[in-house]
Amino acid sequence: MDFDIIQKLVKPADSKVILLVMDGLGGLPTHAEDFTELEKANTPNMDRLAREGVCGLHQPIGPGITPGSGPSHLALFGYDPIRYQVGRGVLAALGINFDLQDGDVAARGNFCTVNSNGKVTDRRAGRIPTEKNQELCEKLRKIEVPGVEVFIDTVKEYRFLLVMRGENLSGELADTDPQSTGLQPLPPEPITSEAEHTADRVRQFIEKAGEVLSDDAPANMVLMRGFSKKPDWPAFPDVFGVKPAAIAAYPMYRGVSRLVGMDILETGEKLADEIDTLEKHWEDYDFFYFHVKKIDSAGEDGDFDRKVSLIEAVDASVPQIMKLNPDVVLVTGDHSTPSFMKYHSWHPVPVLLWSKYCRNDPVNRFGERACMAGGLGPRIPATDLMPLMMANAGRLEKFGA
Amino acid sequence: MDFDIIQKLVKPADSKVILLVMDGLGGLPTHAEDFTELEKANTPNMDRLAREGVCGLHQPIGPGITPGSGPSHLALFGYDPIRYQVGRGVLAALGINFDLQDGDVAARGNFCTVNSNGKVTDRRAGRIPTEKNQELCEKLRKIEVPGVEVFIDTVKEYRFLLVMRGENLSGELADTDPQSTGLQPLPPEPITSEAEHTADRVRQFIEKAGEVLSDDAPANMVLMRGFSKKPDWPAFPDVFGVKPAAIAAYPMYRGVSRLVGMDILETGEKLADEIDTLEKHWEDYDFFYFHVKKIDSAGEDGDFDRKVSLIEAVDASVPQIMKLNPDVVLVTGDHSTPSFMKYHSWHPVPVLLWSKYCRNDPVNRFGERACMAGGLGPRIPATDLMPLMMANAGRLEKFGA
Repeated sequence: MDFDIIQKLVKPADSKVILLVMDGLGGLPTHAEDFTELEKANTPNMDRLAREGVCGLHQPIGPGITPGSGPSHLALFGYDPIRYQVGRGVLAALGINFDLQDGDVAARGNFCTVNSNGKVTDRRAGRIPTEKNQELCEKLRKIEVPGVEVFIDTVKEYRFLLVMRGENLSGELADTDPQSTGLQPLPPEPITSEAEHTADRVRQFIEKAGEVLSDDAPANMVLMRGFSKKPDWPAFPDVFGVKPAAIAAYPMYRGVSRLVGMDILETGEKLADEIDTLEKHWEDYDFFYFHVKKIDSAGEDGDFDRKVSLIEAVDASVPQIMKLNPDVVLVTGDHSTPSFMKYHSWHPVPVLLWSKYCRNDPVNRFGERACMAGGLGPRIPATDLMPLMMANAGRLEKFGA
Repeated sequence: MDFDIIQKLVKPADSKVILLVMDGLGGLPTHAEDFTELEKANTPNMDRLAREGVCGLHQPIGPGITPGSGPSHLALFGYDPIRYQVGRGVLAALGINFDLQDGDVAARGNFCTVNSNGKVTDRRAGRIPTEKNQELCEKLRKIEVPGVEVFIDTVKEYRFLLVMRGENLSGELADTDPQSTGLQPLPPEPITSEAEHTADRVRQFIEKAGEVLSDDAPANMVLMRGFSKKPDWPAFPDVFGVKPAAIAAYPMYRGVSRLVGMDILETGEKLADEIDTLEKHWEDYDFFYFHVKKIDSAGEDGDFDRKVSLIEAVDASVPQIMKLNPDVVLVTGDHSTPSFMKYHSWHPVPVLLWSKYCRNDPVNRFGERACMAGGLGPRIPATDLMPLMMANAGRLEKFGA
């Protein structure tokens, strides 16, 4: 549904919603046995929710499209992931949990090597270690560019983040990375005339970076890519009329949540930490996005059994969550990461929606193939789930008379 | 999915895909027995693929829309059949396998009868036999129009094809058929100013046609309809990053395949000929569209039993196809042609997708009602199937990070 429609229908209610996302939940049967990870897992608590609620499988982006975690989370938050695309600089900022402000422009930086003629000889500066990167970032932070604030942060190895903050900045700049060695870095060309001011500021930054790094070969220059501005999107609290909090340990997920306007709660990396955080803030919010990362990592490692036991651990926490007495609980993944494939995949993701207003379906087991027979269907668009949660939470008015 | 998105995600892979289309596959139970043609057919090989793969029913165009073969094939090829519509002149060219070039304008022609005042007395020239048509086309071929090449081909009875080739031609011309007798043929009015040049050329052609046919009453004039230019669409190999070949015996299907940029392989009318062609060219291509026509014809004849045995014949060839070791096989029809209705119908069409990356579903029999419980769902848009085939072939990158 268009946000315009949703926003007109939203009404307040004294109800609480939990969106529980097990990263990379969806799986495939292996050659060895005819079970997916979720089907193999012993999940009595989620099975009960499935029995009482309504199930299905959601399609995060589109048919055959393997989602990155950013777009698939946006889809779960109700944002059309094709329309709401994040620039790569912004994505880098999210990835290290940088607190982007409205109007900020972010870009990904590489430390690189240039020779005495200024030509690039190594686009990755010999893959310097992260510690070296941190030292060099200290130097870059000393650079002053008139009219803008400059932020520099280490990402990893040769990669760092540049953020510029100031008036009238634009993300419409071309990359300075010439994409091959033997060439000079390109100037940061403005793609539109509005970007000329920004291009000028970036040019000054790069010039000064070359000066302060001149003695730091192999990391004696920088290449900048993916300039992008913090997007000006409708805010989640405004669209859905809730006060939302994100409980997520990993920077990327905290970043995406912040981008749509959720409050980010401090929490730990363990599931128990996240549950503590949920309990502690239960009275302060009415929408909780609760993210469990490690299931995806097990899938990417191809570790079927570890993925199974991590799912079982989440299941074991479900009674504690239900004790808070939420009105609506949606349990799903952001995408599939079959351990059979060791990678994200395009396969639809099991989803269960529980509330006292669900029209329950024949599904009595939370698993991929059981969910195919569910009331939500085998390929519900992920963006449809937010309106369904809101309806079940009594937060949407009737449309028309 | 938008072609823009797909095209950005496409990556090369060493994998081979077969799209096996049984024309008019979908059926209905008859009054006599509670089976569709496909359900009645003994299809152990397709049943095995259904068991190992994922099934469903596809909706070729839209709800309740009975497809022509052109649009339903475009949909299977991933082209939105509402957006990518073919002009009627172009369709006529495809129907007789005329090799349209970029910039060509095609139109459908009728031989007609005019009286001494130039008024139409029979819009179909007494439905002259095809042999007579061929003679008259010989005469029309002698017509020369300055600045354009003119091609004339017999279609059938009173119908022929006109193609003009030259610089700056336009298909934006009104029909010359006055649609009723007692009126003079209309001039080929340009609908846009860019079409004036073409209108002038067509006017010259029609004038000369009247002259060369003056002694051939009842076929002493021509009426022209459906002017259209070969469409400038994204090419299938560019969109999906494959090298595609079409194996189809009938002109219409060869024409549609050529229109989207597939190579057209020479083959015979028999299924065995088509299999031979597939085997012979297996190493030369990585995407094969394989078309079996006669199942549709049996449906149109209302011959339930013939349709059953033709389906069984295709099933019997499946092991020979699988011996080639394809990575992805999709088996479906372009539309339904229930022998009960003796006509194309709007009913969704059974589809099975087989690859080693399918999340198999409970369907273990390839038939309309079995497929309703499949993982692809009972109404997957036909245009979703190409991205799914490409994903299963390992040919699509992740979307976003």
